Amino acid sequence: MPRVSQDQLDARRHEILAGARACFARYGYEGATVRRLEEETGLSRGAIFHHFRDKESLFLAVAEDDAAAMVETVARNGLVQVMRDLLHRVATGWESGAESRAESRGEPGAESDVAGWLGTQLEVSRRLRTDAEFAKRWAARADAIAAATRDRLLRQREAGVLRVDIDVDVLAQFLELAYDGLVLHLAMGRPSVDLERVLDLVEAAVRRPNHRRS
Amino acid sequence: MPRVSQDQLDARRHEILAGARACFARYGYEGATVRRLEEETGLSRGAIFHHFRDKESLFLAVAEDDAAAMVETVARNGLVQVMRDLLHRVATGWESGAESRAESRGEPGAESDVAGWLGTQLEVSRRLRTDAEFAKRWAARADAIAAATRDRLLRQREAGVLRVDIDVDVLAQFLELAYDGLVLHLAMGRPSVDLERVLDLVEAAVRRPNHRRS
Repeated sequence: MPRVSQDQLDARRHEILAGARACFARYGYEGATVRRLEEETGLSRGAIFHHFRDKESLFLAVAEDDAAAMVETVARNGLVQVMRDLLHRVATGWESGAESRAESRGEPGAESDVAGWLGTQLEVSRRLRTDAEFAKRWAARADAIAAATRDRLLRQREAGVLRVDIDVDVLAQFLELAYDGLVLHLAMGRPSVDLERVLDLVEAAVRRPNHRRS
Repeated sequence: MPRVSQDQLDARRHEILAGARACFARYGYEGATVRRLEEETGLSRGAIFHHFRDKESLFLAVAEDDAAAMVETVARNGLVQVMRDLLHRVATGWESGAESRAESRGEPGAESDVAGWLGTQLEVSRRLRTDAEFAKRWAARADAIAAATRDRLLRQREAGVLRVDIDVDVLAQFLELAYDGLVLHLAMGRPSVDLERVLDLVEAAVRRPNHRRS
Protein backbone atom coordinates (compact mmCIF):
# COMPACT_ATOMS: atom_id res chain seq x y z
CA MET A 1 0.00 0.00 0.00
CA PRO A 2 1.29 3.47 -0.85
CA ARG A 3 1.85 5.70 2.16
CA VAL A 4 -0.73 8.39 2.68
CA SER A 5 0.79 11.87 2.77
CA GLN A 6 0.16 14.32 5.64
CA ASP A 7 -1.71 16.57 3.20
CA GLN A 8 -4.05 13.74 2.32
CA LEU A 9 -4.62 12.96 6.00
CA ASP A 10 -5.35 16.64 6.72
CA ALA A 11 -7.72 16.86 3.77
CA ARG A 12 -9.61 13.78 4.94
CA ARG A 13 -9.77 15.15 8.47
CA HIS A 14 -11.27 18.42 7.20
CA GLU A 15 -13.75 16.47 5.11
CA ILE A 16 -14.91 14.52 8.16
CA LEU A 17 -15.18 17.68 10.27
CA ALA A 18 -17.31 19.44 7.63
CA GLY A 19 -19.74 16.53 7.38
CA ALA A 20 -19.84 16.06 11.15
CA ARG A 21 -20.50 19.78 11.70
CA ALA A 22 -23.58 19.61 9.49
CA CYS A 23 -24.71 16.38 11.12
CA PHE A 24 -24.43 17.61 14.73
CA ALA A 25 -26.19 20.82 13.79
CA ARG A 26 -29.06 19.07 12.06
CA TYR A 27 -29.70 16.29 14.56
CA GLY A 28 -28.08 17.53 17.76
CA TYR A 29 -25.39 15.60 19.60
CA GLU A 30 -27.61 12.68 20.64
CA GLY A 31 -29.35 12.45 17.27
CA ALA A 32 -26.11 12.40 15.27
CA THR A 33 -25.87 8.63 15.07
CA VAL A 34 -22.89 6.86 13.53
CA ARG A 35 -25.08 5.97 10.53
CA ARG A 36 -25.98 9.63 10.01
CA LEU A 37 -22.33 10.65 10.41
CA GLU A 38 -21.50 8.14 7.67
CA GLU A 39 -24.18 9.61 5.41
CA GLU A 40 -23.12 13.22 5.97
CA THR A 41 -19.41 12.59 5.50
CA GLY A 42 -19.83 10.00 2.76
CA LEU A 43 -17.31 7.84 4.63
CA SER A 44 -17.46 4.57 6.53
CA ARG A 45 -17.39 4.47 10.33
CA GLY A 46 -13.99 2.82 10.06
CA ALA A 47 -12.62 5.80 8.14
CA ILE A 48 -14.23 8.31 10.49
CA PHE A 49 -13.03 6.69 13.72
CA HIS A 50 -9.56 6.17 12.27
CA HIS A 51 -9.24 9.95 12.62
CA PHE A 52 -11.31 10.54 15.77
CA ARG A 53 -11.45 8.25 18.78
CA ASP A 54 -15.20 8.52 19.32
CA LYS A 55 -18.22 10.76 18.75
CA GLU A 56 -17.32 12.89 21.76
CA SER A 57 -13.85 13.58 20.33
CA LEU A 58 -15.32 14.31 16.92
CA PHE A 59 -17.76 16.83 18.36
CA LEU A 60 -15.03 18.53 20.38
CA ALA A 61 -12.82 18.68 17.27
CA VAL A 62 -15.61 20.39 15.29
CA ALA A 63 -16.18 22.92 18.07
CA GLU A 64 -12.47 23.55 18.63
CA ASP A 65 -11.89 23.91 14.89
CA ASP A 66 -14.52 26.65 14.78
CA ALA A 67 -13.11 28.37 17.86
CA ALA A 68 -9.52 28.30 16.52
CA ALA A 69 -10.63 29.80 13.19
CA MET A 70 -12.47 32.50 15.11
CA VAL A 71 -9.45 33.41 17.24
CA GLU A 72 -7.44 33.91 14.03
CA THR A 73 -10.08 36.09 12.39
CA VAL A 74 -10.62 38.18 15.51
CA ALA A 75 -6.87 38.81 15.85
CA ARG A 76 -6.68 39.87 12.20
CA ASN A 77 -9.90 41.81 11.64
CA GLY A 78 -11.67 42.23 14.98
CA LEU A 79 -14.92 40.85 16.31
CA VAL A 80 -17.13 43.38 14.54
CA GLN A 81 -15.75 42.18 11.20
CA VAL A 82 -16.40 38.57 12.24
CA MET A 83 -20.02 39.56 12.83
CA ARG A 84 -20.26 41.37 9.51
CA ASP A 85 -18.81 38.36 7.69
CA LEU A 86 -21.25 36.02 9.43
CA LEU A 87 -24.20 38.24 8.50
CA HIS A 88 -23.00 38.54 4.92
CA ARG A 89 -22.64 34.79 4.60
CA VAL A 90 -26.11 34.16 5.99
CA ALA A 91 -27.56 36.76 3.59
CA THR A 92 -25.82 35.27 0.56
CA GLY A 93 -26.01 31.61 1.55
CA TRP A 94 -22.24 31.46 2.10
CA GLU A 95 -21.71 32.15 -1.64
CA SER A 96 -18.36 33.77 -0.98
CA GLY A 97 -17.37 30.82 1.17
CA ALA A 98 -18.41 28.39 -1.55
CA GLU A 99 -16.15 30.11 -4.09
CA SER A 100 -13.11 29.74 -1.89
CA ARG A 101 -14.00 26.24 -0.87
CA ALA A 102 -11.57 24.57 -3.24
CA GLU A 103 -8.68 26.27 -1.45
CA SER A 104 -9.74 25.63 2.13
CA ARG A 105 -12.00 22.65 2.49
CA GLY A 106 -12.45 22.97 6.25
CA GLU A 107 -14.32 26.27 6.00
CA PRO A 108 -18.09 26.40 5.82
CA GLY A 109 -18.90 26.46 2.13
CA ALA A 110 -22.18 24.89 1.07
CA GLU A 111 -25.50 26.63 1.75
CA SER A 112 -26.59 24.09 4.32
CA ASP A 113 -23.45 24.83 6.34
CA VAL A 114 -24.84 28.18 7.47
CA ALA A 115 -27.44 26.51 9.64
CA GLY A 116 -24.91 23.83 10.43
CA TRP A 117 -22.31 26.15 11.80
CA LEU A 118 -24.83 28.18 13.78
CA GLY A 119 -26.35 25.01 15.13
CA THR A 120 -22.99 23.78 16.35
CA GLN A 121 -22.60 26.98 18.37
CA LEU A 122 -25.90 26.32 20.13
CA GLU A 123 -25.09 22.67 20.63
CA VAL A 124 -21.86 23.75 22.33
CA SER A 125 -23.82 26.01 24.67
CA ARG A 126 -26.19 23.17 25.48
CA ARG A 127 -23.39 20.72 26.26
CA LEU A 128 -21.63 23.31 28.39
CA ARG A 129 -24.57 23.14 30.77
CA THR A 130 -24.85 19.37 30.90
CA ASP A 131 -21.24 18.15 30.61
CA ALA A 132 -18.73 19.40 33.21
CA GLU A 133 -15.71 17.83 31.47
CA PHE A 134 -16.62 19.44 28.17
CA ALA A 135 -17.17 22.77 29.94
CA LYS A 136 -13.66 22.60 31.39
CA ARG A 137 -12.03 21.91 28.02
CA TRP A 138 -14.15 24.56 26.38
CA ALA A 139 -13.34 27.33 28.87
CA ALA A 140 -9.78 27.51 27.48
CA ARG A 141 -11.14 28.11 23.97
CA ALA A 142 -13.59 30.76 25.12
CA ASP A 143 -10.77 32.49 27.00
CA ALA A 144 -8.61 32.46 23.85
CA ILE A 145 -11.37 34.20 21.87
CA ALA A 146 -11.83 36.74 24.67
CA ALA A 147 -8.06 37.37 24.81
CA ALA A 148 -7.86 37.85 21.02
CA THR A 149 -10.75 40.32 21.19
CA ARG A 150 -9.09 42.23 24.01
CA ASP A 151 -5.67 42.35 22.26
CA ARG A 152 -7.21 43.63 19.08
CA LEU A 153 -9.05 46.35 21.03
CA LEU A 154 -5.84 47.40 22.79
CA ARG A 155 -4.19 47.85 19.40
CA GLN A 156 -7.21 49.81 18.20
CA ARG A 157 -6.96 52.04 21.24
CA GLU A 158 -3.29 52.69 20.53
CA ALA A 159 -4.23 53.61 16.99
CA GLY A 160 -6.67 56.18 18.40
CA VAL A 161 -9.75 54.52 16.93
CA LEU A 162 -11.30 53.37 20.21
CA ARG A 163 -13.14 55.39 22.83
CA VAL A 164 -10.96 55.95 25.90
CA ASP A 165 -13.58 56.60 28.59
CA ILE A 166 -14.49 52.92 29.08
CA ASP A 167 -12.29 49.97 30.10
CA VAL A 168 -11.10 47.78 27.26
CA ASP A 169 -12.40 44.77 29.21
CA VAL A 170 -15.90 46.21 29.21
CA LEU A 171 -15.72 47.04 25.50
CA ALA A 172 -14.50 43.51 24.76
CA GLN A 173 -17.37 41.97 26.71
CA PHE A 174 -19.83 44.28 25.00
CA LEU A 175 -18.64 43.01 21.60
CA GLU A 176 -18.78 39.40 22.79
CA LEU A 177 -22.34 39.97 24.00
CA ALA A 178 -23.29 41.31 20.58
CA TYR A 179 -21.60 38.34 18.93
CA ASP A 180 -23.44 35.82 21.12
CA GLY A 181 -26.68 37.67 20.41
CA LEU A 182 -26.06 37.55 16.66
CA VAL A 183 -25.38 33.83 16.75
CA LEU A 184 -28.55 33.11 18.73
CA HIS A 185 -30.63 35.48 16.58
CA LEU A 186 -29.49 33.92 13.30
CA ALA A 187 -29.67 30.36 14.63
CA MET A 188 -33.32 30.99 15.55
CA GLY A 189 -33.95 31.98 11.94
CA ARG A 190 -35.17 35.48 12.90
CA PRO A 191 -35.17 38.10 10.11
CA SER A 192 -31.86 39.85 9.45
CA VAL A 193 -33.05 42.93 7.52
CA ASP A 194 -31.72 45.69 9.77
CA LEU A 195 -28.81 43.80 11.28
CA GLU A 196 -26.22 45.60 9.16
CA ARG A 197 -27.30 48.87 10.74
CA VAL A 198 -27.43 47.25 14.16
CA LEU A 199 -23.78 46.25 13.71
CA ASP A 200 -22.96 49.85 12.70
CA LEU A 201 -24.42 50.88 16.05
CA VAL A 202 -22.41 48.20 17.88
CA GLU A 203 -19.23 49.41 16.19
CA ALA A 204 -19.95 53.09 16.86
CA ALA A 205 -20.54 52.31 20.55
CA VAL A 206 -16.92 51.22 21.04
CA ARG A 207 -15.29 53.87 18.84
CA ARG A 208 -14.21 57.40 19.53
CA PRO A 209 -16.73 59.96 18.35
CA ASN A 210 -15.68 60.77 14.79
CA HIS A 211 -14.49 64.35 14.95
CA ARG A 212 -14.23 64.58 11.19
CA ARG A 213 -18.01 64.55 10.99
CA SER A 214 -18.59 67.59 13.18
CA MET B 1 -66.10 15.36 45.86
CA PRO B 2 -65.77 19.11 46.50
CA ARG B 3 -65.42 21.25 43.42
CA VAL B 4 -61.97 22.62 42.73
CA SER B 5 -61.90 26.42 42.46
CA GLN B 6 -60.37 28.26 39.50
CA ASP B 7 -57.70 29.63 41.84
CA GLN B 8 -56.73 26.13 42.86
CA LEU B 9 -56.59 25.03 39.20
CA ASP B 10 -54.41 28.04 38.31
CA ALA B 11 -52.11 27.38 41.25
CA ARG B 12 -51.70 23.76 40.23
CA ARG B 13 -51.04 24.79 36.65
CA HIS B 14 -48.31 27.20 37.78
CA GLU B 15 -46.81 24.49 39.95
CA ILE B 16 -46.61 22.09 37.01
CA LEU B 17 -45.09 24.76 34.76
CA ALA B 18 -42.38 25.60 37.34
CA GLY B 19 -41.38 21.95 37.72
CA ALA B 20 -41.54 21.31 33.99
CA ARG B 21 -39.42 24.40 33.25
CA ALA B 22 -36.64 23.07 35.50
CA CYS B 23 -36.99 19.58 34.01
CA PHE B 24 -36.79 20.67 30.35
CA ALA B 25 -33.83 22.90 31.15
CA ARG B 26 -31.93 20.17 32.97
CA TYR B 27 -32.56 17.27 30.61
CA GLY B 28 -33.53 18.94 27.35
CA TYR B 29 -36.81 18.24 25.59
CA GLU B 30 -36.03 14.63 24.67
CA GLY B 31 -34.51 13.84 28.06
CA ALA B 32 -37.43 15.22 30.05
CA THR B 33 -39.23 11.88 30.41
CA VAL B 34 -42.65 11.58 32.02
CA ARG B 35 -40.99 10.00 35.06
CA ARG B 36 -38.64 12.97 35.44
CA LEU B 37 -41.52 15.39 34.97
CA GLU B 38 -43.30 13.58 37.81
CA GLU B 39 -40.21 13.89 40.02
CA GLU B 40 -39.67 17.58 39.30
CA THR B 41 -43.30 18.57 39.76
CA GLY B 42 -43.95 16.14 42.63
CA LEU B 43 -47.17 15.18 40.86
CA SER B 44 -48.44 12.06 39.10
CA ARG B 45 -48.60 11.84 35.32
CA GLY B 46 -52.37 11.77 35.64
CA ALA B 47 -52.36 15.13 37.43
CA ILE B 48 -49.87 16.63 34.95
CA PHE B 49 -51.68 15.54 31.81
CA HIS B 50 -55.03 16.57 33.24
CA HIS B 51 -53.75 20.11 32.72
CA PHE B 52 -51.67 19.66 29.56
CA ARG B 53 -52.53 17.42 26.64
CA ASP B 54 -49.01 16.07 26.13
CA LYS B 55 -45.33 16.87 26.62
CA GLU B 56 -45.28 19.06 23.50
CA SER B 57 -48.13 21.19 24.89
CA LEU B 58 -46.43 21.38 28.27
CA PHE B 59 -43.19 22.61 26.74
CA LEU B 60 -44.98 25.20 24.63
CA ALA B 61 -46.89 26.38 27.71
CA VAL B 62 -43.62 26.85 29.63
CA ALA B 63 -42.07 28.78 26.76
CA GLU B 64 -45.18 30.89 26.13
CA ASP B 65 -45.51 31.61 29.83
CA ASP B 66 -41.97 33.01 29.85
CA ALA B 67 -42.57 35.02 26.68
CA ALA B 68 -45.83 36.50 27.99
CA ALA B 69 -44.17 37.55 31.25
CA MET B 70 -41.39 39.14 29.23
CA VAL B 71 -43.78 41.13 27.01
CA GLU B 72 -45.36 42.57 30.18
CA THR B 73 -42.05 43.53 31.75
CA VAL B 74 -40.72 45.05 28.53
CA ALA B 75 -43.86 47.17 28.13
CA ARG B 76 -43.55 48.37 31.74
CA ASN B 77 -39.80 48.82 32.22
CA GLY B 78 -38.06 48.31 28.88
CA LEU B 79 -35.70 45.63 27.64
CA VAL B 80 -32.62 47.10 29.34
CA GLN B 81 -34.35 46.73 32.72
CA VAL B 82 -35.29 43.14 31.83
CA MET B 83 -31.58 42.50 31.23
CA ARG B 84 -30.58 44.20 34.49
CA ASP B 85 -33.14 42.14 36.41
CA LEU B 86 -31.92 38.93 34.80
CA LEU B 87 -28.31 39.75 35.66
CA HIS B 88 -29.25 40.68 39.22
CA ARG B 89 -31.15 37.45 39.68
CA VAL B 90 -28.28 35.35 38.37
CA ALA B 91 -25.86 37.20 40.67
CA THR B 92 -28.06 36.72 43.72
CA GLY B 93 -29.42 33.27 42.89
CA TRP B 94 -32.91 34.70 42.33
CA GLU B 95 -33.10 35.68 46.03
CA SER B 96 -35.42 38.54 45.27
CA GLY B 97 -37.58 36.23 43.22
CA ALA B 98 -37.67 33.72 46.06
CA GLU B 99 -39.01 36.34 48.46
CA SER B 100 -41.88 37.20 46.20
CA ARG B 101 -42.60 33.62 45.34
CA ALA B 102 -45.47 33.29 47.77
CA GLU B 103 -47.38 36.00 45.88
CA SER B 104 -46.71 34.81 42.34
CA ARG B 105 -45.96 31.15 42.19
CA GLY B 106 -45.40 31.03 38.44
CA GLU B 107 -42.28 33.22 38.56
CA PRO B 108 -38.80 31.74 38.74
CA GLY B 109 -38.03 31.63 42.43
CA ALA B 110 -35.73 28.87 43.62
CA GLU B 111 -31.99 29.01 42.95
CA SER B 112 -32.08 26.11 40.52
CA ASP B 113 -34.61 28.02 38.42
CA VAL B 114 -31.93 30.41 37.14
CA ALA B 115 -30.29 27.69 35.11
CA GLY B 116 -33.74 26.29 34.40
CA TRP B 117 -35.12 29.44 32.90
CA LEU B 118 -31.98 30.10 30.86
CA GLY B 119 -31.95 26.52 29.68
CA THR B 120 -35.52 26.78 28.48
CA GLN B 121 -34.55 29.74 26.33
CA LEU B 122 -31.84 27.70 24.62
CA GLU B 123 -34.12 24.69 24.27
CA VAL B 124 -36.60 26.99 22.50
CA SER B 125 -33.90 28.12 20.09
CA ARG B 126 -32.96 24.50 19.43
CA ARG B 127 -36.52 23.41 18.73
CA LEU B 128 -37.06 26.41 16.47
CA ARG B 129 -34.48 24.95 14.12
CA THR B 130 -35.77 21.40 14.16
CA ASP B 131 -39.57 21.80 14.48
CA ALA B 132 -41.34 23.86 11.80
CA GLU B 133 -44.72 23.73 13.58
CA PHE B 134 -43.19 24.99 16.81
CA ALA B 135 -41.33 27.72 14.89
CA LYS B 136 -44.62 28.93 13.43
CA ARG B 137 -46.36 29.15 16.80
CA TRP B 138 -43.32 30.76 18.35
CA ALA B 139 -42.93 33.49 15.72
CA ALA B 140 -46.05 35.21 17.07
CA ARG B 141 -44.53 35.34 20.56
CA ALA B 142 -41.20 36.67 19.30
CA ASP B 143 -43.08 39.33 17.32
CA ALA B 144 -45.01 40.34 20.45
CA ILE B 145 -41.76 40.84 22.38
CA ALA B 146 -40.31 42.83 19.47
CA ALA B 147 -43.47 44.98 19.27
CA ALA B 148 -43.40 45.66 23.02
CA THR B 149 -39.75 46.70 22.77
CA ARG B 150 -40.50 49.01 19.86
CA ASP B 151 -43.54 50.61 21.56
CA ARG B 152 -41.57 51.25 24.68
CA LEU B 153 -38.78 52.88 22.64
CA LEU B 154 -41.29 55.10 20.80
CA ARG B 155 -42.56 56.35 24.15
CA GLN B 156 -38.97 56.91 25.28
CA ARG B 157 -38.30 58.91 22.14
CA GLU B 158 -41.36 61.07 22.78
CA ALA B 159 -40.05 61.66 26.29
CA GLY B 160 -36.80 62.93 24.79
CA VAL B 161 -34.69 60.17 26.35
CA LEU B 162 -33.80 58.35 23.15
CA ARG B 163 -31.32 59.31 20.47
CA VAL B 164 -33.08 60.59 17.35
CA ASP B 165 -30.46 59.96 14.66
CA ILE B 166 -31.18 56.22 14.35
CA ASP B 167 -34.43 54.41 13.45
CA VAL B 168 -36.40 53.05 16.38
CA ASP B 169 -36.49 49.69 14.56
CA VAL B 170 -32.70 49.54 14.54
CA LEU B 171 -32.49 50.54 18.21
CA ALA B 172 -35.06 47.87 19.11
CA GLN B 173 -33.11 45.19 17.25
CA PHE B 174 -29.90 46.35 18.88
CA LEU B 175 -31.47 45.83 22.32
CA GLU B 176 -32.87 42.43 21.29
CA LEU B 177 -29.41 41.41 20.09
CA ALA B 178 -27.95 42.39 23.46
CA TYR B 179 -30.71 40.47 25.23
CA ASP B 180 -30.11 37.33 23.17
CA GLY B 181 -26.40 37.68 23.83
CA LEU B 182 -26.96 37.99 27.56
CA VAL B 183 -29.15 34.88 27.64
CA LEU B 184 -26.59 32.83 25.71
CA HIS B 185 -23.69 34.20 27.79
CA LEU B 186 -25.35 33.40 31.11
CA ALA B 187 -26.67 30.04 29.95
CA MET B 188 -23.11 29.06 29.02
CA GLY B 189 -22.08 29.86 32.59
CA ARG B 190 -19.54 32.48 31.50
CA PRO B 191 -18.42 34.99 34.16
CA SER B 192 -20.69 37.97 34.71
CA VAL B 193 -18.31 40.36 36.53
CA ASP B 194 -18.37 43.32 34.14
CA LEU B 195 -21.81 42.75 32.69
CA GLU B 196 -23.39 45.55 34.71
CA ARG B 197 -21.05 48.01 32.99
CA VAL B 198 -21.65 46.33 29.65
CA LEU B 199 -25.38 46.97 30.11
CA ASP B 200 -24.61 50.62 30.96
CA LEU B 201 -22.88 50.82 27.59
CA VAL B 202 -25.84 49.13 25.84
CA GLU B 203 -28.22 51.63 27.44
CA ALA B 204 -26.02 54.63 26.63
CA ALA B 205 -25.85 53.52 22.99
CA VAL B 206 -29.62 54.02 22.48
CA ARG B 207 -29.96 57.21 24.54
CA ARG B 208 -29.47 60.84 23.66
CA PRO B 209 -26.11 62.18 24.73
CA ASN B 210 -26.70 63.59 28.21
CA HIS B 211 -26.30 67.33 27.84
CA ARG B 212 -26.40 67.87 31.58
CA ARG B 213 -22.97 66.28 31.80
CA SER B 214 -21.26 68.68 29.40
